[in-house]
Amino acid sequence: MNLSTVIGITLGIVLVVGAIFLGGNAIIFLSAQSIMIVLGGTLAGTFVSFSLEDLKAIPSLLKISFTNEPIDSHNIIDILVDLAKKARKEGLLTLEQDIEEIDDPYLEKGVQLVVDGTEPELVKDIMETKLAYMESRHSKGSKIFSQMGALSPAFGMIGTLIGLIQMLSQLDDPSKLGSGMAVALITTLYGAFLANLFFIPLANKLKVKSKEEIIIKELMIEGILSIQAGENPRIIEEKLKAFLPEEQYVEEEAEEQVDTSKVVGENA
Amino acid sequence: MNLSTVIGITLGIVLVVGAIFLGGNAIIFLSAQSIMIVLGGTLAGTFVSFSLEDLKAIPSLLKISFTNEPIDSHNIIDILVDLAKKARKEGLLTLEQDIEEIDDPYLEKGVQLVVDGTEPELVKDIMETKLAYMESRHSKGSKIFSQMGALSPAFGMIGTLIGLIQMLSQLDDPSKLGSGMAVALITTLYGAFLANLFFIPLANKLKVKSKEEIIIKELMIEGILSIQAGENPRIIEEKLKAFLPEEQYVEEEAEEQVDTSKVVGENA
Amino acid sequence: MNLSTVIGITLGIVLVVGAIFLGGNAIIFLSAQSIMIVLGGTLAGTFVSFSLEDLKAIPSLLKISFTNEPIDSHNIIDILVDLAKKARKEGLLTLEQDIEEIDDPYLEKGVQLVVDGTEPELVKDIMETKLAYMESRHSKGSKIFSQMGALSPAFGMIGTLIGLIQMLSQLDDPSKLGSGMAVALITTLYGAFLANLFFIPLANKLKVKSKEEIIIKELMIEGILSIQAGENPRIIEEKLKAFLPEEQYVEEEAEEQVDTSKVVGENA
Amino acid sequence: MNLSTVIGITLGIVLVVGAIFLGGNAIIFLSAQSIMIVLGGTLAGTFVSFSLEDLKAIPSLLKISFTNEPIDSHNIIDILVDLAKKARKEGLLTLEQDIEEIDDPYLEKGVQLVVDGTEPELVKDIMETKLAYMESRHSKGSKIFSQMGALSPAFGMIGTLIGLIQMLSQLDDPSKLGSGMAVALITTLYGAFLANLFFIPLANKLKVKSKEEIIIKELMIEGILSIQAGENPRIIEEKLKAFLPEEQYVEEEAEEQVDTSKVVGENA
Amino acid sequence: MNLSTVIGITLGIVLVVGAIFLGGNAIIFLSAQSIMIVLGGTLAGTFVSFSLEDLKAIPSLLKISFTNEPIDSHNIIDILVDLAKKARKEGLLTLEQDIEEIDDPYLEKGVQLVVDGTEPELVKDIMETKLAYMESRHSKGSKIFSQMGALSPAFGMIGTLIGLIQMLSQLDDPSKLGSGMAVALITTLYGAFLANLFFIPLANKLKVKSKEEIIIKELMIEGILSIQAGENPRIIEEKLKAFLPEEQYVEEEAEEQVDTSKVVGENA
Repeated sequence: MNLSTVIGITLGIVLVVGAIFLGGNAIIFLSAQSIMIVLGGTLAGTFVSFSLEDLKAIPSLLKISFTNEPIDSHNIIDILVDLAKKARKEGLLTLEQDIEEIDDPYLEKGVQLVVDGTEPELVKDIMETKLAYMESRHSKGSKIFSQMGALSPAFGMIGTLIGLIQMLSQLDDPSKLGSGMAVALITTLYGAFLANLFFIPLANKLKVKSKEEIIIKELMIEGILSIQAGENPRIIEEKLKAFLPEEQYVEEEAEEQVDTSKVVGENA
Repeated sequence: MNLSTVIGITLGIVLVVGAIFLGGNAIIFLSAQSIMIVLGGTLAGTFVSFSLEDLKAIPSLLKISFTNEPIDSHNIIDILVDLAKKARKEGLLTLEQDIEEIDDPYLEKGVQLVVDGTEPELVKDIMETKLAYMESRHSKGSKIFSQMGALSPAFGMIGTLIGLIQMLSQLDDPSKLGSGMAVALITTLYGAFLANLFFIPLANKLKVKSKEEIIIKELMIEGILSIQAGENPRIIEEKLKAFLPEEQYVEEEAEEQVDTSKVVGENA
Repeated sequence: MNLSTVIGITLGIVLVVGAIFLGGNAIIFLSAQSIMIVLGGTLAGTFVSFSLEDLKAIPSLLKISFTNEPIDSHNIIDILVDLAKKARKEGLLTLEQDIEEIDDPYLEKGVQLVVDGTEPELVKDIMETKLAYMESRHSKGSKIFSQMGALSPAFGMIGTLIGLIQMLSQLDDPSKLGSGMAVALITTLYGAFLANLFFIPLANKLKVKSKEEIIIKELMIEGILSIQAGENPRIIEEKLKAFLPEEQYVEEEAEEQVDTSKVVGENA
Repeated sequence: MNLSTVIGITLGIVLVVGAIFLGGNAIIFLSAQSIMIVLGGTLAGTFVSFSLEDLKAIPSLLKISFTNEPIDSHNIIDILVDLAKKARKEGLLTLEQDIEEIDDPYLEKGVQLVVDGTEPELVKDIMETKLAYMESRHSKGSKIFSQMGALSPAFGMIGTLIGLIQMLSQLDDPSKLGSGMAVALITTLYGAFLANLFFIPLANKLKVKSKEEIIIKELMIEGILSIQAGENPRIIEEKLKAFLPEEQYVEEEAEEQVDTSKVVGENA
Repeated sequence: MNLSTVIGITLGIVLVVGAIFLGGNAIIFLSAQSIMIVLGGTLAGTFVSFSLEDLKAIPSLLKISFTNEPIDSHNIIDILVDLAKKARKEGLLTLEQDIEEIDDPYLEKGVQLVVDGTEPELVKDIMETKLAYMESRHSKGSKIFSQMGALSPAFGMIGTLIGLIQMLSQLDDPSKLGSGMAVALITTLYGAFLANLFFIPLANKLKVKSKEEIIIKELMIEGILSIQAGENPRIIEEKLKAFLPEEQYVEEEAEEQVDTSKVVGENA
């Protein structure tokens, strides 16, 4: 569970729905037609903007936004330092046994390449190409949501324009102007609400998560290449710690009983 | 057929036209004058923004957006690996026979250069110059549509202003204010609708497609240069696979009967 | 004549003026005060934004936008290849005779440097510095118009606010509200129209033209340096053709009677 | 105390609250519901946009914005030059004694690395990685506030839409339209006020402070590496002074009694 | 005197004030409260956005915008070429005598470094660091004004919202709606006017001026390093002329009586 996403969305819905109920007459805020125009129009524009393949990623993008897999950078550093120690003592080939236990497929791939005796230059090349491609896929994911965040207020306005035009052109009784405008404005409300509580923030969350992941991957590349080069594990640790904020590591060291496999990520 | 473009545009039109018909009085939404100002004005601004040469590309840009030619990166990798194997066994010159069968003109050109015995540095230079130029042409194509996406709501507003000024200045009977405003707002509606269902999403689709194509071309450059350098086909495959998402390749390998020429692209 | 600029502006004016005349009462759309505020205010803000020297370039920027000097890249390639052939056969010094006939001052300068026996590194340096500076001047030209495109709707709104405030504060007879608002809105209309038919599209046209010119200049640098290095003319041609789209060159070759000096540019 | 933040916020509140009180009827501007929607909605959207870890940094980001720790670049240069002199006379190892007295943890770390005999290449690597990571954390901090600055006017508008819809749909007595709209508009006012006096300016302040800090850190890297390379202290001073504006240093030298430890930062 | 700034601001004020007086009732456009909210609010937001140190630069930024010190690039080139000739004939050390006469402190510093026998690599390093830092200070100056340009319409709207809420909530007599709205709109007018005639254009002028200065400084670095390397003065001149537009230099040469110290800058 990604707590912040769940808290944020719950809070936003409770507040807005609460404000609506406090005003009495809540039923007027429900409009199937408005939902159709805003959600449908946003979806339509998104279909035109991306390919079916890209859109198939939406469920997994939502899953990433709602589930929490905090990346534990300390754990990764510890794993890399352990591998470095072993490689130094018993040779690079013995790392083969540890590959199974590595959770992260990217790190696994890197260690596999090293064990296979791939040239360092090629390992770097492959790992960086993989990272660059991953980054471009992530950025596409985030762009799908920010595109939706731009389209939904636009279709909200389109719905309101349709409503206004219909209402104004049939207006016989000026006293109905008020209620007619109320109905027309609901679509704008839907568009603004969807964009500002869902689409734009979700696009941002995906962007933030992607940046975190890239830092971790860069740390892994650094670590793998250092292991392959047979560098001193102490120096490797020093180098990798530079990727983390000072405070974080200090805190960490303060906890006496460091349990590598359980440490919770604290990526401030 | 690019399914997502067709689905999106159909869905968007059905929804908006549906909402209009549900409101009764649909005829009021048709206005030749509004279409003239919005479409004509957008076209006029686009003519000033670009050259005739650039605008001649619009039909082919639309064709690219509406037709689907999914790039099958696996297929490309397989072709490159096959060429690498052959080149290693029988020499670079024998690749001449395979050039005919290569569909992609860019890849064909690259292999031709290698067969002609062009210096590796020059091959790289030519291929990268071609790619850079192609990228800049693609980006111009996408900019034509995003410019139209910016101009069409602007001319929508211009049309509404003209309508409002005419209506307000002749207003004798305040009861006609409503219907007058309704007519004036239609131009804004047209502008917003065209921008958000067509121009902006199409600009985005072209941008996305261009990025995909560039990755494939970069993969081709990498492959061609590796073949020319006489690298091990297994290593070439490893390098090129780094351009694809992990999952995609795994899926691929799961399918036992790999038929190189039919594999459908799954560029997630 | 730059056809697209002329067509676009004519079309835009005809459409908007047409829509105004169709509505009858066209005289109300003329307002000297509105023109003064919008055009004058835009000019005032532009004066503050740039220096007199920069603004002196406006007439020549307009001339560039309205006159068409399509850059014929094939012609340039042919000239460069011819020079390369001659230099190879008869020596670099004999190029002196051809300098006179070169129209483009940039290319002329480059060949002059080569004939003067300037070091290749220095030729590259000088040509690239000239190009970078030219690019920065072009970008300033385009920014003058895009700044005007941002200022004119703003001063349109300022004029409308002034009109509204005057009208509302003197409002005795509510029945005059309509015609007062009509007058006030004219300034907004002027601002939006000027920005979207003139300033923003002209800024874009200048940007597009600049990019084209830069590609041609880069092609020239590549060509000049290759000539100086005494490279094979066939290879030079190959390298320079990489700057052009594939189709373009094919078309070209299809025309049997290639007349180097007359080929019309087809910079798609 | 960061004087400018405190002055700015006080001034802004005094002016706006003053204008409200001058208009009499100030009580109408208090609305718990509006605060709930604007602040709550902004918070909700921010929760969705970032992770809990990121949001935990808000208090310390506020502290950075409100407290003033002017970075005294002269002091840093003096410290570095002193260290350089000592290192030259008595050897790098003797710097160990001075580490305790260095306030800045980043500089301390750098000197520690040098004292430990770390390879120059590795020192540079570690210091630059730390700086890059710090920069990315800073930029995230500033983005939290600019995201809030974008969300708060949006939720202001959402609140106003809700109010308008409720008011218009229940409107029996047109004479109440005025007061109803007044209430609805308060939420927009809150959103605009929060964004333009708090969120957007605070985001900017954090960005400006981060840039200053990065320049100082770059100066430190330059200094540390020069010390390690055993460069002439006079030359080191010359190099580091290039990071400061001319005037600043001149002023500095004018003050006869330079007291290294007290000089107040004048980062113009 | 920077003519364009003075002309622009005078023109803008005359036009807008003229339009106000033409409408009669000009007194209504004066509102101390509106000025307080717009100017005060903008200032408040700017204080929060920047540090006191940064804001102290505002007067000198205004001075830069209003006074004209056209940079005479020809003069600079002539000085550099003269120095190059002297250095070649009489040795680098003799340049010491000329330092006094150099007006530009940046150029002076560079020549001083060369005379002091500083290593070329270090001269380049110091000059480029100084330039980079200067650029970042300039960009901060321009950002102060563009931030004000964003804040002033926002506080204009805030003032109008306050006015509207007060007016609407006390509205007993609907006939006063007009004059109340007129008063409320004045704040929006102030905000828009300040932003579009002052803040945004001044930010732009500073940006343009900074770019010009950077080009000149880059030209100086190129010149100083060439002098130090003992390059041929004719070649140095050739290299430096590449920084200027072609026409400018031609014009220059056309004037027979070139008086190096008086030539007026024509930085088109």
